[in-house]
Amino acid sequence: MTLDAVLAHIDAELPKATDRLLDLLRIPSISTDPAYKADCDRAADWLVDELNGLGFDASKRPTTGHPMVVAHNDGTGPHVLFYGHYDVQPVDPLELWDTPPFEPALEDTDKGVVIRGRGASDDKGQLMTFVEACRAWKAVTGSLPIRVSIFFEGEEESGSPSLVPFMQQNAKELTADIALICDTGLFESAVPAITTQLRGMVTEDFTIKGAARDLHSGMYGGLAGNPIHILSDIIAKLHDETGHITLEGFYDDVPELSDDIRSQWQNLAFDHAGYLGDVGLSVPAGEQDRTPLEMIWSRPTCEVNGIWGGYTGDGFKTVLPAEASAKISFRLVGQQDPDKIHEAFVKHVKDNLPSDFTVEFTPSRGAPASQMSTDNPAFEKSRQALSDEWPRPAAYVGCGGSIPIAGHFKEVLGMDAMLIGFGKDDDAIHSPNEKYDMESFHKGTRSWARILAALAE
Amino acid sequence: MTLDAVLAHIDAELPKATDRLLDLLRIPSISTDPAYKADCDRAADWLVDELNGLGFDASKRPTTGHPMVVAHNDGTGPHVLFYGHYDVQPVDPLELWDTPPFEPALEDTDKGVVIRGRGASDDKGQLMTFVEACRAWKAVTGSLPIRVSIFFEGEEESGSPSLVPFMQQNAKELTADIALICDTGLFESAVPAITTQLRGMVTEDFTIKGAARDLHSGMYGGLAGNPIHILSDIIAKLHDETGHITLEGFYDDVPELSDDIRSQWQNLAFDHAGYLGDVGLSVPAGEQDRTPLEMIWSRPTCEVNGIWGGYTGDGFKTVLPAEASAKISFRLVGQQDPDKIHEAFVKHVKDNLPSDFTVEFTPSRGAPASQMSTDNPAFEKSRQALSDEWPRPAAYVGCGGSIPIAGHFKEVLGMDAMLIGFGKDDDAIHSPNEKYDMESFHKGTRSWARILAALAE
Repeated sequence: MTLDAVLAHIDAELPKATDRLLDLLRIPSISTDPAYKADCDRAADWLVDELNGLGFDASKRPTTGHPMVVAHNDGTGPHVLFYGHYDVQPVDPLELWDTPPFEPALEDTDKGVVIRGRGASDDKGQLMTFVEACRAWKAVTGSLPIRVSIFFEGEEESGSPSLVPFMQQNAKELTADIALICDTGLFESAVPAITTQLRGMVTEDFTIKGAARDLHSGMYGGLAGNPIHILSDIIAKLHDETGHITLEGFYDDVPELSDDIRSQWQNLAFDHAGYLGDVGLSVPAGEQDRTPLEMIWSRPTCEVNGIWGGYTGDGFKTVLPAEASAKISFRLVGQQDPDKIHEAFVKHVKDNLPSDFTVEFTPSRGAPASQMSTDNPAFEKSRQALSDEWPRPAAYVGCGGSIPIAGHFKEVLGMDAMLIGFGKDDDAIHSPNEKYDMESFHKGTRSWARILAALAE
Repeated sequence: MTLDAVLAHIDAELPKATDRLLDLLRIPSISTDPAYKADCDRAADWLVDELNGLGFDASKRPTTGHPMVVAHNDGTGPHVLFYGHYDVQPVDPLELWDTPPFEPALEDTDKGVVIRGRGASDDKGQLMTFVEACRAWKAVTGSLPIRVSIFFEGEEESGSPSLVPFMQQNAKELTADIALICDTGLFESAVPAITTQLRGMVTEDFTIKGAARDLHSGMYGGLAGNPIHILSDIIAKLHDETGHITLEGFYDDVPELSDDIRSQWQNLAFDHAGYLGDVGLSVPAGEQDRTPLEMIWSRPTCEVNGIWGGYTGDGFKTVLPAEASAKISFRLVGQQDPDKIHEAFVKHVKDNLPSDFTVEFTPSRGAPASQMSTDNPAFEKSRQALSDEWPRPAAYVGCGGSIPIAGHFKEVLGMDAMLIGFGKDDDAIHSPNEKYDMESFHKGTRSWARILAALAE
């Protein structure tokens, strides 16, 4: 079988593939620091050269910031756009690194060989898994099983300021049948995973206002209302005793998990005790009738991110403050509409506002949840391919946060995305001594080789 | 009658008394600013000279800060200690003064003649009402009707750092049958008043702690508990829907008003709409079954003075904070015990603390309420004397705040105090263009002359 030959080629060529990754890791492409602008440029050039060497039509494309790399390889069957980023995080505190961050090296550890260096996992090692998979297919068959485009960004670690404008200006060129994003990890470092749902968000920043000025609590305490009490009451009433959010209609557009996803998640046997234990907690504190994975992946949330009012310095000032403020964010799922959630929140606040008090909202911002349609056969094909490669079967998983790139592909280009990555929880991305397991690099490359084959079927 | 002669003397000598007050007001005795140290000393000297001139045995007494003035005049009958302070507030913002703050002058206004200048009302004008009353008695009769000591402080506007040590070191000399404190005002600028109850205080500063570090709300939101929610819930539960405080046993030692006091307060016809309207409010927000005057004078309170937690800067950080804090003060009345209130508060917090969360209290501070025993006949005699002088009958009133000096007289010297003053709400103490009404100065002097006579009976 062709695929077996491709996989065998990957196994045989692993040392050379590793050397190429080490080359890329030696380029200190720190996007946020202008001192490394030439290095970012150099990393883009390196990738363009690699891809052109593989037969892609690759080019470096200028932006007002660091350049993009775009490459195309014709082919039949479905068209995929692969995304990764070649820029890396800064390295401070440098003194905590055991080896120089841009002198990458292989290292034997208790858990196997790792590739140590800044960007090894985030995201140079990950993006090279796809490049090496393409190389193996080209080497063995002279072509790729499907039509492939590649899109590398150099500003992911500094807020992606050029990304959406570049997508808009090059929409036709960048649009494919589906996007592949390799910037995530294995579930619990072991289970291959395709992220199919990302929570959306609504943010609220508001101030309760009462008296025209701060009042002396001796002269007015017990007679005048206190905005901190009112704010606390409003916050306390956002959840009921079972952890449910009380806004009117809040759960109207929240779907239940499909039986298939529920079953997959049960099989993941999420170690919530360990997950909470890592941060000094032990008890799941959310909706009492939901599993921990649902709480962080598929259920909407309401969290106060900040609160302030009155005197907060040293000592005491017995003031009855004129106002009190909070920042609240809602994570949205399913079809929850950010505007409707905002309106329900405004109503909740106003319904709990006594006479004499007013509320001021700073404009709320929101984005809906992303729910990938796994009806697209690419998902099941990829999941099977991942399951074939790894010891444990692959699962569709959720992600509690937002991954902006996935939303941009959907909003700007109308593409669903499959988020597939091979990072592990202990990769120390953004931290000193970042590493990528040789297993992640090797089996990640083999995974993409399998997925390319599967998508061609 | 002798008193009539004394009062006539006061009337006749008012211009000269006013000139003396203007002399004192010209001394810029700003206690908080070291640049005025010599001026504070000069003000003390001026008072010593005045009092020695009246036949008192007066002396300036050094402290580590500004000097005290202590003076004695022998006599029969009860022994009173009169307290006032010769220091004044700073004058900034100077540009808002219509006349130089230390060039005091008489000014005709719509509401009558006023004495304009820093310290006119707080407290030089007030303390001189007593000195001038003594002068008139001396002039007409050659002596005072009772035994009088005088105690002037020069650090009241800068926190009275020397006061308690000086009291402790001179306890025997300063102890009298009752203290007279002239540093308060007429009720609603019109009704002469003796303050007989001052609220006490307990302050609480505490932090709710959860996870070992701030968490990403995308990764942990909905699963991990949020200290801001818990703090809000604890605060929301401090009051029930009728405005009562929910701590166990909180009202155990809160007395009901006597029929006499209740009747006096009803007669005051407190304009709570105007009082609240001045600060942009309209609705009494405290205990629903209490009158506005009870709310601010005779009922205990619980007010959050400050709250903070999480991200409070510009924009958004979707953090789930590791901790959240608040400062809460309780105003105490009657026999409420600060320690018991603290313990009940600690219990309330702990009872509402979910698993995984802890609370840290910074040491709480407290002082019980002061309730003067009006059984001492000095109170009724003084109230009658004030009623004889002013168009409206005098009342025993409460004070929502704490006046530390009254507590110190009670705690250090074991003396009750009568707080009687003639300031008006528009005197602008601590502000630009401070003034003291000539009516306050004149009728204040006459009031003390009457009280000295009444206490001799």
